[in-house]
Amino acid sequence: MSEKANTGRTTGNNLDPWYHHYAQRTAGLSASEVRALFAVASRPEVVSLAGGMPFVSALPQDLVTDSLNRVMRDLGPTALQYGSGQGVPALREQILEVMALEGIQGSADDVIVTTGSQHALELVTKLFIDPGDVVLAEGPSYVTAMVVFNSFQAEVDHVPMDEWGLIPEALREHIASLKAAGKTIKFLYTIPNFHNPAGVTLSWERRLEILEIAKQNDILVLEDNPYGLLYFDGPPPQALRSVESDGVVYLGTFSKTLAPGFRVGWALAPHAIREKLILANEAAILCPSSFSQLVISEYLKNADWKGQINTFRGVYRERKETMLSALSEHLPELSWTNPTGGFYVWLTLPAHLDSKAMLPRAVTELVAYTPGTAFYADGGGRQNIRLSFCYPTPESIRVGVRRLATVINGELDLLETFAGTGSLDAVRTPRNSFPPSDMH
Amino acid sequence: MSEKANTGRTTGNNLDPWYHHYAQRTAGLSASEVRALFAVASRPEVVSLAGGMPFVSALPQDLVTDSLNRVMRDLGPTALQYGSGQGVPALREQILEVMALEGIQGSADDVIVTTGSQHALELVTKLFIDPGDVVLAEGPSYVTAMVVFNSFQAEVDHVPMDEWGLIPEALREHIASLKAAGKTIKFLYTIPNFHNPAGVTLSWERRLEILEIAKQNDILVLEDNPYGLLYFDGPPPQALRSVESDGVVYLGTFSKTLAPGFRVGWALAPHAIREKLILANEAAILCPSSFSQLVISEYLKNADWKGQINTFRGVYRERKETMLSALSEHLPELSWTNPTGGFYVWLTLPAHLDSKAMLPRAVTELVAYTPGTAFYADGGGRQNIRLSFCYPTPESIRVGVRRLATVINGELDLLETFAGTGSLDAVRTPRNSFPPSDMH
Repeated sequence: MSEKANTGRTTGNNLDPWYHHYAQRTAGLSASEVRALFAVASRPEVVSLAGGMPFVSALPQDLVTDSLNRVMRDLGPTALQYGSGQGVPALREQILEVMALEGIQGSADDVIVTTGSQHALELVTKLFIDPGDVVLAEGPSYVTAMVVFNSFQAEVDHVPMDEWGLIPEALREHIASLKAAGKTIKFLYTIPNFHNPAGVTLSWERRLEILEIAKQNDILVLEDNPYGLLYFDGPPPQALRSVESDGVVYLGTFSKTLAPGFRVGWALAPHAIREKLILANEAAILCPSSFSQLVISEYLKNADWKGQINTFRGVYRERKETMLSALSEHLPELSWTNPTGGFYVWLTLPAHLDSKAMLPRAVTELVAYTPGTAFYADGGGRQNIRLSFCYPTPESIRVGVRRLATVINGELDLLETFAGTGSLDAVRTPRNSFPPSDMH
Repeated sequence: MSEKANTGRTTGNNLDPWYHHYAQRTAGLSASEVRALFAVASRPEVVSLAGGMPFVSALPQDLVTDSLNRVMRDLGPTALQYGSGQGVPALREQILEVMALEGIQGSADDVIVTTGSQHALELVTKLFIDPGDVVLAEGPSYVTAMVVFNSFQAEVDHVPMDEWGLIPEALREHIASLKAAGKTIKFLYTIPNFHNPAGVTLSWERRLEILEIAKQNDILVLEDNPYGLLYFDGPPPQALRSVESDGVVYLGTFSKTLAPGFRVGWALAPHAIREKLILANEAAILCPSSFSQLVISEYLKNADWKGQINTFRGVYRERKETMLSALSEHLPELSWTNPTGGFYVWLTLPAHLDSKAMLPRAVTELVAYTPGTAFYADGGGRQNIRLSFCYPTPESIRVGVRRLATVINGELDLLETFAGTGSLDAVRTPRNSFPPSDMH
């Protein structure tokens, strides 16, 4: 639900009388080729390992109902009214406490509340991107971030990752070659913790190195951190924003630690950028929902929110372990990442299999996934699959992985039949692409 | 709270290390020169006739609390989760019932739920406006619509109004002269009912004529109708969208008939445009708040929402009458519009008075208003003031208008002192600008 694959484009056609009236940027608004398949995949008999929905049923509803009723009792007219374009001051103070858990010191003055962190992404992009500007992003990267970048006519340049996250040396090379080509690089978009879709985490040494590279090259860093508090064993390295405040716009959200249905996220930005973000937010929506903000503020004030995050951690840890053990059992020859938090595993298929072409067959076998191509702006990712363990139960995960193995093995059998025995080894052995085969 | 005056610009400066990195459009994001004054004006001793906040205290809180609790009891996990980018299907069906009250027939398939109707404005503008494209709008027009248009580098061309709304002959002339100048006109933005800020309503004959002009010239109409159900005596003429479906994008909202704190509005759009609006909505925010949508859906299902709108009508009718009677008492020589619904009166000052220059003195006298300049993209409106009667109590309105009269008469005395007796008549007699002096 939270993501649409970034493949294919919809522009007008001759049946649309307004075809010639759209802005140029509208050609960059992508419709998903796999959307129709996902509609099929939402049938109850299909195990979906495709979505990024948090398991909100792990949140005791009483906690939310209590907050709602307190808000209406104590703050009714304020909750029902327009509010500030920057967001409720009390909530902005509480957001500082949340960010402090990841080592971030800041001022509530520099926090702006947004309609999910997705809207912060849109607003930052609107502020910075002229047509043809370059956004650096990990390869692969978050699908709906790329939809936003495309919708403002940015060029996305993918910088490779490995099991320790974005590769600093590759970042240096990409910057040098883009500069040599006369391109304007506006920012680096990165998900350092439990990456979506790759499931890997940027090491501490690399965080420092990447900040240094960004600074040397006068490139803003857009740090997107929806999953950082959802670690399984120990916390990930501290946020990029904990080291560098002038060169980082940090994005956070309550969608994964509380519930996405309220659509409340935030940006913490350098002061001058923050001022423009408020203006852009007011233009776009006047103000974020007073009601949603006050409910979350009450929840943070009265409920054991850290304990609740611990509960979520336990749920997702169990599901991740179930998924990895099912993969080891049913697809022992493949490679995948081992996330230490978050929602996703990134699977590498055997050579010659195509994750996008295989999807309809998977849906026929009653399992859905997101093909790797959704996470690249340049057609990459055909050999990869993102598997989500956040929403399905452990039992469903086991069933889903077993069905996926049936599909993959069926495709391999087909390939072998047509390839003859000579190429058997090549087919069965995964290519040493990201993730490297030594990752499990 | 819901509006910021569209005067002045903020761009970066040398203290902002990212000054040279912003997109070109960011120069069009306006900061309000009167914002600091409005901060002062929010002190309790100041009577504010400036804001556009609905009087949400007229909404019985039980009605909302009941809806909240029903949603959590019956639909908790759905309310807390991500939803469709187009909005909750049940609510889109109910929105059809709301629009039917203004003569609109449509399909729930063509409704898209947005984060207030403000976000629909932003999304439509993003879809259609290339830099330099023209948006036609009434003069004056809604301030934050113009902020949006500017933020996408549109040129706003104001078409004059009179007491029957936008003047068709003027629209024809403006289109012809813009076309002759080689300009691309993308849409006509209009508020036909109880106009913000002018308080006038477009006549039925003119609705038909304007639709015809738009059709002849291949210009999309963006019909913004936040106040249509808040009429005082009889309903206004039916919506433009009730006559023409292919050439109109209609915007509605629950902010004025229920509460703005939920941030739920909608667009009803021709099918092809609707499809692109969904993509743009998903890019911007993934999906509108499930929680807010379901609460409103429950409210529409279980509460006497039409009776509640009647209650609001009564509240606003009384306040309008109070304001007009206070104006007649304290400022009998001035002219103003007589709105038959909505939130606003548009006042014309005597010649030589400047609404923007006078504002600091008004705040000193403990009354605030919005200067007419906020509602023009071209510096017009110096002789006008928008007075809001929606939020202050009748007693406050009387006090506010009395204070305003003190300010205006003080300014006139000053003018007369400096002008000498010869120009007295010219000063005391309003210019025959919009609104014409025969309007009260």
